[in-house]
Amino acid sequence: MANPIAIVGSGSWATALAKILTDNGQPVYWWIRSEEVIRHMQTRHHNKHYLTSVYFNTALLQLSDNLQTVVAACDTVILAVPSAFLTSVLEALPEDALQNKKVISAIKGMIPDQNRLINEYLLTEFGLPLEQYFTITGPCHAEEVAAEKLSYLTFSGLQPAATAELAALFTNANLQTVVNTDVIGVQFAALLKNIYALGAGIGHGLDYGDNFLSVLITNSFREMQGFLEKYGQYAGTEHHLAPEHDYNASAYLGDLLVTCYSLHSRNRTFGNMIGKGYSVKAAQLEMNMVAEGYYASRCIYEINREVGAYMPVAQAVYSILWEQQNAAEAFMALEKGFI
Amino acid sequence: MANPIAIVGSGSWATALAKILTDNGQPVYWWIRSEEVIRHMQTRHHNKHYLTSVYFNTALLQLSDNLQTVVAACDTVILAVPSAFLTSVLEALPEDALQNKKVISAIKGMIPDQNRLINEYLLTEFGLPLEQYFTITGPCHAEEVAAEKLSYLTFSGLQPAATAELAALFTNANLQTVVNTDVIGVQFAALLKNIYALGAGIGHGLDYGDNFLSVLITNSFREMQGFLEKYGQYAGTEHHLAPEHDYNASAYLGDLLVTCYSLHSRNRTFGNMIGKGYSVKAAQLEMNMVAEGYYASRCIYEINREVGAYMPVAQAVYSILWEQQNAAEAFMALEKGFI
Repeated sequence: MANPIAIVGSGSWATALAKILTDNGQPVYWWIRSEEVIRHMQTRHHNKHYLTSVYFNTALLQLSDNLQTVVAACDTVILAVPSAFLTSVLEALPEDALQNKKVISAIKGMIPDQNRLINEYLLTEFGLPLEQYFTITGPCHAEEVAAEKLSYLTFSGLQPAATAELAALFTNANLQTVVNTDVIGVQFAALLKNIYALGAGIGHGLDYGDNFLSVLITNSFREMQGFLEKYGQYAGTEHHLAPEHDYNASAYLGDLLVTCYSLHSRNRTFGNMIGKGYSVKAAQLEMNMVAEGYYASRCIYEINREVGAYMPVAQAVYSILWEQQNAAEAFMALEKGFI
Repeated sequence: MANPIAIVGSGSWATALAKILTDNGQPVYWWIRSEEVIRHMQTRHHNKHYLTSVYFNTALLQLSDNLQTVVAACDTVILAVPSAFLTSVLEALPEDALQNKKVISAIKGMIPDQNRLINEYLLTEFGLPLEQYFTITGPCHAEEVAAEKLSYLTFSGLQPAATAELAALFTNANLQTVVNTDVIGVQFAALLKNIYALGAGIGHGLDYGDNFLSVLITNSFREMQGFLEKYGQYAGTEHHLAPEHDYNASAYLGDLLVTCYSLHSRNRTFGNMIGKGYSVKAAQLEMNMVAEGYYASRCIYEINREVGAYMPVAQAVYSILWEQQNAAEAFMALEKGFI
């Protein structure tokens, strides 16, 4: 039997990744916080809260609420909890817990309040070198993985052979994988696209139409590229590992599009409520979840105070969400600057 | 009173342009083929077939089915008929009819069977120099112009001052204009996006989901750029007027997105029917109209036999529409090549 892989988290994305791996016959050690969810999965073979239509071959699953034992049992660990909860979840691990392990981040965000990428956080807290760090990015809504619609995942890591090996575990008839070495760039792409999807949702909520939306997304794509160019200069070659980002690839434009346009997109849905006049608090309560773009907008705002890229769309989203700027006014100011 | 502007055509796009101009107080000489449509507009103040909710200030309109008098009365002529009908419509004009006039093409296509851009055709048939030729491109669905949703138009022409002057006639609170000199590039963008929207429709009709669609569109955008680079080398500097195309602008990515994603998109709708198993003929009869992308796919296929760009998506659309290739099989072959 193949070496097991650890999955940390039990939301929809973690559940989708567990489905893909077990569909491929891959044994999984799955850390789930709630004992009740574990019990339900053991008896009913599905996650009672997320992607409830997905039934698992439980012979391939080891479920546990003890993170340390799950991580200790596996050479490869997938992190799939919301960015806002990562530090509190990983507190359960000793500092050397990730030694010699491969860690795959399936998280679409930074550590809030720290404005650090997941790899930066894992380096300082667990001494994980970037060579052992990998990312999974989309475009890939969990709901369509559940529905077995053809989806694409991008795997990024410094070492092409190791990255391809991990990607191979996920590849099947419904799941194409793409591999690159752009492990820093794709994380920013994943962060930024959530902010822009919030913006697209706000625009939709404000009753702008399809013509405007396409212009907004086009200018957001331009803005994403401008940020990464400036970030590269700011961070220097040392931190800017792949100076040539392939923007016209799935992990950049593709993920931006699906997040901005799909009705499965939580960030778009959240933005739509804001555009319709809900407060941030009311929208969060109504959705019973946190849209990653909410935190991402503050992270990028703060980072960009140093980086200095021209980001009117991200700035508008930040001002609306965090500074109570009137959404209609913020968008009116954006209109003129678009090309 | 300002000099009148001629509009040639009475479809939805022509009607939208007439609305924008007359909303701005601009007198319009409007060539409409059907006497009945003219009579209806004179008495009922709207186009009985297209954008029927748009009511016109008929004091600003001179309606006529005589093309020669309409063109003779105006210094600026907007062409807004489907590309397939342009040559038969303009047959009514003497060779010198466009002398010293500015001609604005609002047509999203080439002359079928000739594979020539509109400016190439106007140069050989009417001696119109490229300096007097301008284009209007999107993203701008006519339906949203009618609904007074904020939209964007790109005006392209070799002479920036003259182009900006024309653009100014269209600018208002619901209509932003963008100006550039990329008059050849934007025409190819407008052509290609219709092919890719057909592809997106076919994919949707075949029951692919949002994840795949975003990857398809991303790879189409890459393909569009690859074609234009190769075309530039093929055509040489003489015909390739703006070697630097701003792909991340409304006229390229924006128009591609709105055409691929909007439910107003006729090309997407047509493709969807093909994906669901309609024949080309049945889909055309059902829609009672011709999707521009149908002809465009053959034009680009034939041009690309010379140009030699890598265009698997455009090739697949061509094969499905013109060579009866099975849509599901053609898409299956595409899947693996996407990044």
